Amino acid sequence: MADFQPPRGMRDYLPEEMIAREGMLEKITAVFRTFGFDPLETPALESMEVLRAKAGELGGQIFSVEGELGLRFDLTVPLARVVASNPALPKPFRRYCIARVWRREEPQRGRLREFIQADIDIVGSAEMSCEAELLACAGKALEAAGFAEYRIRLNNRKIVERVLEAQGIAKGALVTVMRSLDKTEKIGEDGVVRELEAKGVSGETARGLLRVLKAEGSNAQKLASMEGTAGEGVRELREILELAKAYGIDERIEVDFLLVRGLDYYTGPVFEIEAGGGVGSIAGGGRYDNLIQSYGGEPTPAVGISLGVERMMALRGEGGVRTRTKVFVANTRPEFLPSAIKVAQALRERGIAAQTDVMGRNLRKQFEYAAGAGIPFVAVIGEREMKEGKLTLRDLAKKEERAVTLAEAVRILRGRG
Amino acid sequence: MADFQPPRGMRDYLPEEMIAREGMLEKITAVFRTFGFDPLETPALESMEVLRAKAGELGGQIFSVEGELGLRFDLTVPLARVVASNPALPKPFRRYCIARVWRREEPQRGRLREFIQADIDIVGSAEMSCEAELLACAGKALEAAGFAEYRIRLNNRKIVERVLEAQGIAKGALVTVMRSLDKTEKIGEDGVVRELEAKGVSGETARGLLRVLKAEGSNAQKLASMEGTAGEGVRELREILELAKAYGIDERIEVDFLLVRGLDYYTGPVFEIEAGGGVGSIAGGGRYDNLIQSYGGEPTPAVGISLGVERMMALRGEGGVRTRTKVFVANTRPEFLPSAIKVAQALRERGIAAQTDVMGRNLRKQFEYAAGAGIPFVAVIGEREMKEGKLTLRDLAKKEERAVTLAEAVRILRGRG
Repeated sequence: MADFQPPRGMRDYLPEEMIAREGMLEKITAVFRTFGFDPLETPALESMEVLRAKAGELGGQIFSVEGELGLRFDLTVPLARVVASNPALPKPFRRYCIARVWRREEPQRGRLREFIQADIDIVGSAEMSCEAELLACAGKALEAAGFAEYRIRLNNRKIVERVLEAQGIAKGALVTVMRSLDKTEKIGEDGVVRELEAKGVSGETARGLLRVLKAEGSNAQKLASMEGTAGEGVRELREILELAKAYGIDERIEVDFLLVRGLDYYTGPVFEIEAGGGVGSIAGGGRYDNLIQSYGGEPTPAVGISLGVERMMALRGEGGVRTRTKVFVANTRPEFLPSAIKVAQALRERGIAAQTDVMGRNLRKQFEYAAGAGIPFVAVIGEREMKEGKLTLRDLAKKEERAVTLAEAVRILRGRG
Repeated sequence: MADFQPPRGMRDYLPEEMIAREGMLEKITAVFRTFGFDPLETPALESMEVLRAKAGELGGQIFSVEGELGLRFDLTVPLARVVASNPALPKPFRRYCIARVWRREEPQRGRLREFIQADIDIVGSAEMSCEAELLACAGKALEAAGFAEYRIRLNNRKIVERVLEAQGIAKGALVTVMRSLDKTEKIGEDGVVRELEAKGVSGETARGLLRVLKAEGSNAQKLASMEGTAGEGVRELREILELAKAYGIDERIEVDFLLVRGLDYYTGPVFEIEAGGGVGSIAGGGRYDNLIQSYGGEPTPAVGISLGVERMMALRGEGGVRTRTKVFVANTRPEFLPSAIKVAQALRERGIAAQTDVMGRNLRKQFEYAAGAGIPFVAVIGEREMKEGKLTLRDLAKKEERAVTLAEAVRILRGRG
């Protein structure tokens, strides 16, 4: 018979991996909530018109559905549509969204075509306190997920634009030139120069751009070097760095004028967070002050950051529990199954994950199943236990067992993480 | 400018509604976990071949993606594919999945084209203890979500099949005849007879079928009336009812031989749960012993139940909180914003959802925002507060305020739901 697989570039997540994923997402969600972000969800599908309008270089990667619809490629475009069509939402509108997005990437590059993003955005404010708060919140979420050593790269598109203009790059070519500059880390300076030459920029201009943008020194020195060219952009980054002190994250931030980010809709500060491990950035975002207006809304400044859950999971590595079940309540004979069920129900009422036999198995096979499934304890219900009103609780790892009351069993089972 | 809307039959969920949805889903998830179900996730997309194989009457409702793919219409078909292609999974394989599915329904019938299902399934067991446990678990989940008064309708396709065969219905026509019988509640007996006549069943036979299946009396009496025709099906339902006593749900179950359910893949017991309110069933499922084999797996019995989250939300009605934020930490002057941020960070560390100003607003406007956004408390940080090392905490509903230490603020804010 045919071997049915998930679609190319998409994956199944079996329980062991899912338990770790859920654990990570629950930690991230808890941090998002403490910062006062509230949930918003939108359909997985949007009209092609909405998606194409702002897809930029992702335009070719949209999954087409029934012709006129498409699967969303990020969570920012749907947010902009919602804000544009719901002008009564209070401002700032602060939302989180942890959900799937789809991109028709070439799977040979090892990229998934379906993946989860975890986004927070602040809509309605042009203040740099938003940027500082988003970076702090994303940082706390990364810490909660086990990434204590993250570093933040920060830039401002306004600075890059002024530098490009000063070097005589035409306004219409800004975005395409910036996209090449963004690849410096990936393809090297010579690669960027070649790519820019192919786009009609002279080699001399290209090298000049790289020299100016590759500023050296402390953040303060880098910003001072741009003060004359791009005063507004520099002021904005200084505000972010100042408020970052209140959040205790200022020393994690490095200004990097070569960071641009691929999406077309960014208008101001842009940022990426790295956590080592050679997987590149695990979070990124920026300010997009014109996006909501472009979907028919009032002019509405906005800024957001997106955590890359798949990369975080990849960095996290293997290992974890195979099941959340704490105890298998076994019966010594089929006629004790109802009693085993009642014990399991009592444990469940106390929040303890319990299973009973559903296979009509004998006691030995029930033990084998529990061990094979990674369940740490087995509670046995048999004749003696029924008579004494107790149960025999066995710790499969320690190979220890004893007769306990239900209350004692609860205490032991709760103690085990 | 154009007014961009979500696609037809799909919806945005703004924060107030999402907070209630998340609350409900978290309660359901917690119950699923206590019963020892573990999470499994699969792509939203499947190959059209996988989907069409078992779509039955839903075949025309599959959203087509890039021609060869489609959006899943339920969570059972992907589960069957996973089990078929992962023979090493321990049995019973017990999984929950709470995720979106898509059906191209006609929106004029008021049905959503994208909605959430919350499924639990037990794979690998032919024992009726599975059915009893699934009904008990679904019942607990409904109770946790606020539906204490649910009722369960229970049938067995094996009984209906034997009755149909006894009345001379050809084997190939069983499914189509059953689909008509399933509509008795919706279109009445005369409607069913007319529909069956159009399918080539004589009016006399149709009325005979309805008479036999519309058994009256207690569950025991109904089952006794079928004993001669459908012994195996009757025995199975008796086993479910017997174990339902251990779970304490036997009195909620009503045997109803006219319940069939629309999907083709059911092979044995089928069930639906109703909670009043005129929205029909809010959960339903059944046994599908041949489905996994049909995706190339070993013959593997399985049974599942699906909670209809949208209907549960509709029954739940309006109302709830507009934000999870507990406190807005206001500043009396911009230079106190860093101090407000530090207080907010300290509250967040203690699990309290806090916001600070990101709009450069004056104190009055910060209060207006907090009140308008539904935030219950405002903590003010100003000159006096800085000097005294305290903050002024105002309860916006009670219109009371007092100077408190951070520790006192935490206690008060935790006390508020």
